[in-house]
Amino acid sequence: MNAELVCVGTELLLGNILNTNAKYLSEKCAELGISLYYQTVVGDNADRLKATVQTALQRSDVVIFTGGLGPTNDDLTKETVSEAMGLSLVYDVQAADMMKERFARFHGKLTENNYKQAYVPEGSYVLYNHNGTAPGVLIEKDGKIAVLLPGPPKELIPMFEEYCEPYFKERLGSRIDSVMVKLIGIGESEAAFRLNDLLEGSSNPTVAPYAKTNQVHLRITARGKDDAETVALIAPVLEEIKQRLGAFIYTTDAEKEIEDVVYALLKEKGYTIATAESLTGGLLAGRLVNVSGASEVFSQGFITYSDRAKEEVLGVSSDTLAAYGAVSAVCAKEMALGAAKRAKADVAIATTGIAGPTGGTDEQPVGTVYVAVCCCGKITVEEFHFGKNRQNVREAACLRALNMVRQILLTKE
Amino acid sequence: MNAELVCVGTELLLGNILNTNAKYLSEKCAELGISLYYQTVVGDNADRLKATVQTALQRSDVVIFTGGLGPTNDDLTKETVSEAMGLSLVYDVQAADMMKERFARFHGKLTENNYKQAYVPEGSYVLYNHNGTAPGVLIEKDGKIAVLLPGPPKELIPMFEEYCEPYFKERLGSRIDSVMVKLIGIGESEAAFRLNDLLEGSSNPTVAPYAKTNQVHLRITARGKDDAETVALIAPVLEEIKQRLGAFIYTTDAEKEIEDVVYALLKEKGYTIATAESLTGGLLAGRLVNVSGASEVFSQGFITYSDRAKEEVLGVSSDTLAAYGAVSAVCAKEMALGAAKRAKADVAIATTGIAGPTGGTDEQPVGTVYVAVCCCGKITVEEFHFGKNRQNVREAACLRALNMVRQILLTKE
Repeated sequence: MNAELVCVGTELLLGNILNTNAKYLSEKCAELGISLYYQTVVGDNADRLKATVQTALQRSDVVIFTGGLGPTNDDLTKETVSEAMGLSLVYDVQAADMMKERFARFHGKLTENNYKQAYVPEGSYVLYNHNGTAPGVLIEKDGKIAVLLPGPPKELIPMFEEYCEPYFKERLGSRIDSVMVKLIGIGESEAAFRLNDLLEGSSNPTVAPYAKTNQVHLRITARGKDDAETVALIAPVLEEIKQRLGAFIYTTDAEKEIEDVVYALLKEKGYTIATAESLTGGLLAGRLVNVSGASEVFSQGFITYSDRAKEEVLGVSSDTLAAYGAVSAVCAKEMALGAAKRAKADVAIATTGIAGPTGGTDEQPVGTVYVAVCCCGKITVEEFHFGKNRQNVREAACLRALNMVRQILLTKE
Repeated sequence: MNAELVCVGTELLLGNILNTNAKYLSEKCAELGISLYYQTVVGDNADRLKATVQTALQRSDVVIFTGGLGPTNDDLTKETVSEAMGLSLVYDVQAADMMKERFARFHGKLTENNYKQAYVPEGSYVLYNHNGTAPGVLIEKDGKIAVLLPGPPKELIPMFEEYCEPYFKERLGSRIDSVMVKLIGIGESEAAFRLNDLLEGSSNPTVAPYAKTNQVHLRITARGKDDAETVALIAPVLEEIKQRLGAFIYTTDAEKEIEDVVYALLKEKGYTIATAESLTGGLLAGRLVNVSGASEVFSQGFITYSDRAKEEVLGVSSDTLAAYGAVSAVCAKEMALGAAKRAKADVAIATTGIAGPTGGTDEQPVGTVYVAVCCCGKITVEEFHFGKNRQNVREAACLRALNMVRQILLTKE
C-alpha cells in the first residue's frame, strides 16, 4: 500500500510554520507499514490544489490531506477532493451538533460560514473532532483511500489516533507493533554508537533512533501475523537495549513522559513533592502539574528568581549567596531544603543556573545548572552544562531534574 | 517569478527529521518576493525523483532542490536535474581542491566515491561549500532557474545567504514586505467574519489569517518596488484592522510574544510583577521568564496547588475557601492580593480553575478559569471557559492572564 501526503496551507508555503504534521504522519505511516512516496505542500489556491489532488489520487493508493477544512472560503480541501472523487457534499447532523455545542461553550456566536464545516462527502466516514470545530473524513472509493484531517496538530493527532490508526491496522492485515524506549542523560550519537549493530543489522524487528530535544527515543518495530509474534520478536531486542543502556531508560511506554514516571513513583511511595525554581522559573512545576492527578503529590512550589526571594521565601542564607553566589551547588541545596521545609514535603527539587544569553563567565558559562534533590532529608546535587540556547537550557534542566528524582526514588526502599 | 521547492531525502518520508529547510527556504522566498507554489518531498528513488524534477521544471520558473548531493549512489539530485535540463557533468577543479583540503583537515582519507561531488553541470554557477564537502549549483537555462543545495541546514543556510539571496535580489527588482498582527481573545472564524472584505477582496496588500493555539495571527503582505511603496500599501489596511479589532491586538511585531509585550510595559512603568498559580502550576511564570531580562521585573512566584498552600503561602482566608471554594473569583482575588503583598510587587496575577479531566461540575465545568490581576492595589477579575483539553485550558489561561495584564497596564497613566 503506497501513500502520499498533501498538506494544504499558504502559511506553510510562506514559511510561517514548521510542517510538524508531515513529520508526525510520515512517522505514523512508517510504523503502520505504509510506504510514503511523496509529501506535497500546496497553498489555498483552487487550481493548484485541484491539480495536486488529481495527481495524488492517480498515483497513490492512499492520500492523506491536512489543512483547509476550516470555515473560510480559502478552505477548499474537502470541496476539491470530493469533486475529484465524484462525491457530493451532504449535511452531517452530528458534526453540526458538535460544532454548535462547541461554539456555545467556547467561542460564543456561531457565524453562518461555520456551517460549511458540517458538510461531508457522501458515504464517507466522518472523523468527529473533539478538539476543534472541523470534522475530518475518510473516503474509500474506486480502490483509493483519501483521509482529510484538520491542520492544527492538537486536532490532527488525536483524530489520527482515534480513527485512522485502528482503521489502517485492520486494513493491512499483518500487523506492526512497536515499543518506544525513552532515554534521558545520553546523546543520540552516543546511543547510536553503543547500539550500532542493532540499528544497522536488524530488519525484523528494526531499531530506529528519534532525536528529541534533550532526550533520545528508540523505536523497536516488528511486523508479524499477530500480537504474540510481534511481542516475541521485540522482547529479546528490548532486553539487549536494557542491558546496554538501562541506566538512561526512564520508560518503555510511548505515552509516558518523565513527569508521569516521577508521579507514579511518588504516589507508590506516598510521598509529596515541592519545587524551588530559579532559572526554570515555573517550568518544572508546570511539568509536574501536566499529570492529571498531580494534586495528590504536589501541593506547592516556589519561583525564586531574585536573590532576595531565595532568602525570604526559601531561607537561603545571605552568607551562602555572598560566598558562592546564587548559581552554586550550595545555594541549590539550601533551596531544596527550604522548599521541603516550607511545603512540608517529602521530596523537593531545586534548580539554579544561567539560562543566558547574558550572565555567563569563564568559570560559569551560560548553560551551567545546579539541580538539588532533597529526599526525606537527604540531599543530592548535580552540576550540568547545557549549551547556550536559553529555552533549551531550561528544558534540559527540567528533564534532568525530574530524572534525578526518578533515580533517587528508585533506590529508596 | 514563481517557484517550488523539492526536498530529496528518504529520512523526511520516514518522519525521522523535521523539514526545517522547507520552512527556512519558504520564508526566504516570501521575503524576496518569489511566489512559492509547491513544496515536494521525494525519496532517494531514481524514477520518482525524475518524474518530480520534470514536473517541477515544467510548471515553475525557479526550482530549489535540497539534499541528494552527497557521495553515495543514493545521491541522485545533481545527476537527475542535469539530465532533465540536458546538461552534462564536468569536473570542477576548485570544488575538488576544496573537498581535498576539507578531508585533510576533518575526515582523514578521501575515498574514491567522494570525487562524484566535484562534478557540476556544465555552465552552472558553482556554490562552493565552506561548511561541508558537497558544492551546490545554480543553473540558468531556457528561462528556468534550478538551485541545488546540500541537505544539512548548517551547509544550506550559509550557502543560500552567500550566493542565492544576492542573486535573486538582483534578478527581481521588486520586493515583498509584511506585517504580522497578533490577537488574543477572539477566535479565527470571528476574526475572519469581521474582516471578510479584507481577506477576500484584497490582492495587494493581501490579508491572511493564521490560526495559532488560543490566538489569531493576521499577515498583511504587500508587493512594491521599494520599502516606501510596501509601507504605504500596508499602512491603511493595518489601520482598518486596528479600527475593527484593536482591542484584541497585542502586537504587530512578528518576533514578539504576549510576554514580551507585558515585559516591555512593566519595564516602561518601572513595575514589578508576581504570580500566584493554581491550575497553571508554574506555566504562567515560565512564560514571563521566557523573556531575556525577566529578572528586572519578575522576582518571585508562588505555585499554590492545594487549598492549604493557598492559605499558608498567600493568605487566602479559610472562610473564602469554605464559602466559595478554590475555583472562585473571590479566591483568585485573594491570591492576587496575597502574592502582591508577599512579593512586594506592583502587579500580581493569580489563576485558579479546573484544568480537568476530572473535577468539573454542572455549575463549574472543566475549563472554568478565574484570573485576577492586582495592579497597584486595584483588583480586576475575569471568568473564562476554555473547553476540556487539559493542556489547552492551561495554555489559554496563561495567554488570557497575560493579556489582561497588558490591557490593565495600557489604561494606567
